[in-house]
Amino acid sequence: MIHFKEIGKIMGALLVLIALLMLPGVGFSLYFEEDPWPILSAAVITMILGMVLFFSFSKQDQNIRKREGYLIVALSWVFMAGFGMLPYILSHEINGFSDALFETLSGLTTTGASILTDIEAMPKGLLFWRSMTQWIGGLGIIVLTVAIFPLLGIGGIELFVAESPGPTSDKVHPRISETAKRLWYVYVGLTTLNMLLYWVGGMSFYDAINHALTTLATGGFSTKNASMAHFESPFIQYVAIVFMFLAGTNFTVIYFGLLGKVKRVLQSDEFKTYGLALLALSVILYFPISAVVPDPELAFRKSLFQVVSLVTTTGYVTDNYTQYGQGVTYICFMLLFVGGCAGSTAGGIKFVRHLTFIKNSWLEFKRLVHPRAIVPLMINGDRVTGRIITHIMNFLLLYLLIFVFGALTLSIMGYDLPTSLGAVATCLANVGPGIGSVGPVDNFAFFSPAAKIFLSFIMLLGRLELFTILILFTPFFWRAN
Amino acid sequence: MIHFKEIGKIMGALLVLIALLMLPGVGFSLYFEEDPWPILSAAVITMILGMVLFFSFSKQDQNIRKREGYLIVALSWVFMAGFGMLPYILSHEINGFSDALFETLSGLTTTGASILTDIEAMPKGLLFWRSMTQWIGGLGIIVLTVAIFPLLGIGGIELFVAESPGPTSDKVHPRISETAKRLWYVYVGLTTLNMLLYWVGGMSFYDAINHALTTLATGGFSTKNASMAHFESPFIQYVAIVFMFLAGTNFTVIYFGLLGKVKRVLQSDEFKTYGLALLALSVILYFPISAVVPDPELAFRKSLFQVVSLVTTTGYVTDNYTQYGQGVTYICFMLLFVGGCAGSTAGGIKFVRHLTFIKNSWLEFKRLVHPRAIVPLMINGDRVTGRIITHIMNFLLLYLLIFVFGALTLSIMGYDLPTSLGAVATCLANVGPGIGSVGPVDNFAFFSPAAKIFLSFIMLLGRLELFTILILFTPFFWRAN
Repeated sequence: MIHFKEIGKIMGALLVLIALLMLPGVGFSLYFEEDPWPILSAAVITMILGMVLFFSFSKQDQNIRKREGYLIVALSWVFMAGFGMLPYILSHEINGFSDALFETLSGLTTTGASILTDIEAMPKGLLFWRSMTQWIGGLGIIVLTVAIFPLLGIGGIELFVAESPGPTSDKVHPRISETAKRLWYVYVGLTTLNMLLYWVGGMSFYDAINHALTTLATGGFSTKNASMAHFESPFIQYVAIVFMFLAGTNFTVIYFGLLGKVKRVLQSDEFKTYGLALLALSVILYFPISAVVPDPELAFRKSLFQVVSLVTTTGYVTDNYTQYGQGVTYICFMLLFVGGCAGSTAGGIKFVRHLTFIKNSWLEFKRLVHPRAIVPLMINGDRVTGRIITHIMNFLLLYLLIFVFGALTLSIMGYDLPTSLGAVATCLANVGPGIGSVGPVDNFAFFSPAAKIFLSFIMLLGRLELFTILILFTPFFWRAN
Repeated sequence: MIHFKEIGKIMGALLVLIALLMLPGVGFSLYFEEDPWPILSAAVITMILGMVLFFSFSKQDQNIRKREGYLIVALSWVFMAGFGMLPYILSHEINGFSDALFETLSGLTTTGASILTDIEAMPKGLLFWRSMTQWIGGLGIIVLTVAIFPLLGIGGIELFVAESPGPTSDKVHPRISETAKRLWYVYVGLTTLNMLLYWVGGMSFYDAINHALTTLATGGFSTKNASMAHFESPFIQYVAIVFMFLAGTNFTVIYFGLLGKVKRVLQSDEFKTYGLALLALSVILYFPISAVVPDPELAFRKSLFQVVSLVTTTGYVTDNYTQYGQGVTYICFMLLFVGGCAGSTAGGIKFVRHLTFIKNSWLEFKRLVHPRAIVPLMINGDRVTGRIITHIMNFLLLYLLIFVFGALTLSIMGYDLPTSLGAVATCLANVGPGIGSVGPVDNFAFFSPAAKIFLSFIMLLGRLELFTILILFTPFFWRAN
């Protein structure tokens, strides 16, 4: 039996939180002398419904088990999307269910793909709420990574988030809330610091706070039509690069870094691979870009920015990377399949999974030469069990399968091949820009309502590590007790 | 220490065999009043070098161990390619090393991609040798599957070829040769039967024997420019469909079928999936084709033929499948990633690997719901170990990785994206036709010498199940003892 009462109570609390986080948007509306009523009514409706849900269910003090866990995760994003789209709909700035759903889920999943054709024409209060949806999404992922996924065993990466508790012991609760609190401090602290640096660099306070919210969430929503290309200041762009890099790093690693525990930082194979890969990829992309852009600093900055933005699944752009020919486009498309680190706000496949696959491939050869030897796979100094290796490789194959059939679906809907591949790849990895007609200077407005709803589902699937959503479609999930 | 003497002796025997199999080509040259000397000199050179190699090494009676096994497999194809291209070069009908290598390896790997722009202009004796290279390749794969891969543990599919011996016992030798003999009878018997049916159906004796050789090898070389579309007889096309289907079936299953052991045939999950998948895919493809082709029988025959040809990695065509729009092209491209059954002459990924992945995905969800339960993966009524599951999933990921980087390589060489994707996919799976500029009515002549050599390597990599070739590039292969 599924304890729906407990789930209802949590959804109620979540809606109250969402309502409170809508209020700064009301503030900006008032400050910029816009109509504050759409966001305020959305906040009030959400608040009332949240309180009703919360107080309808008396505290049961029941343990939340696995199945409630899955439902809570899936329903959280569904509830947040359902109420998060209210400001768009009530203001009539985004009309139609599919458009509002797409924009809201693109925010909450920290994707950053947009159906807006003229961002700067939107009321500033609403744009702030749009940035806030990404920051909420980033916050949600931290909670999931620290508190929920380890309990569920989803995606096989929870084990690589240092300090995350195992799925067994009773002592997990104090440790979960302690870890969550620490990572929450890192998230809020880095957002504040990033905002100050953007401000110092020349952004308005409003732009600074918006971009800080979407940088730390690896979201990529901008208040400008040209995204980060609008801010030509090298300082701002380097600040963005550094904070995108941090947002894509395991927050526990950052925490240790802040404590000066360099040894713990360097113990992370994933972090080292992440850093080296970003550097190597930037160098590779530098050559074709520098053939067109003569200034070496500018060429390297463009290359570094695009690589960091795509790999961390942020999706800001300072350049139209499809203009450098097929080779660069192909490489940028492949970057959509990298992803940041486990335990960050980044989406996508993530480095630790690639690392597991690459290390295991090497070991497979060793095992063929020495069939009787026991050849363990080590990551971060720990041995990874066969069970986890299988789970991670299954995740990778499932990810690619969803990508292929997703692109086939869009293709059958009538979109050309690069667009279909680009849209599904970028939505599944929660990046934002793709290739074809959804390149870095395009938007998602032209898709049909059906395609927008389909892509919204793909974003959610990717953000919640596939299994969390897909398991709800299996018969034994509902049958089990 | 690697026992090179033993390897040399085997290579010598192989060359003698190759030389003998060149002789029927000389016969056809004489019959069609062509110059027999190119093939005859090739046969004589190959024979002499083979005998020198064979008699240079006295019988050592040493057991062949794993490492010799890998080298024998890789070197067999290299030696066969090196001497197999002699007839092309000595006749000056194919000029240039890269063209001759490509055409020979496309034969020996049973791929069927061709650099010939006018096949019918070629001497008939030479075309017969071309068909023969595919039949030799098919024979080689049967020997590998039965005798070598089980010893090496390559690709994780050897266990699903019923009756194949385990890697341990000393009693393997009599069983290997017994199994090999049985499958060889099946191969020769089906080739003969197929030839007779093609002949009865209206092909000339020469065309019948050529197409029978390349059908049973799932090769797809034709003596006609239009491939099987040249033979408009529905009877011939249905015969081709049936024999492509059989050539893509596990030969042990066919053997049991011939003995009337229906129970053993139906025990094969792979065979059942294979049959149902071909039917389902043909029905899917029927609808878009029937929108263009009004005659329902013809539309279904076209659909069935293309599906069976691509899935079994034969690569005959009776139709230009890229003319039905993007959807059909996309589906045909995806069919390149299916492959036939383990223990057949088909290349590609193969059904048993897909089955392992799909079954394991399902079980991963079960394991998430019931984390403490032991949920074994069963195929053909046997339990598949975690070790094999990991190996198979690693194979799948490695296969896709090679595909992606292979396509990137061609893309960087300057070929457009569909062509790059199509050429690498079709060469890696040993099919023949692809998409883009290597579609079903195109050929591979336009590629640069470097691209042709690269694609030849890709064909070899795919045919020998990746690991057999890649392991030779690891340092510990050469270091181990």
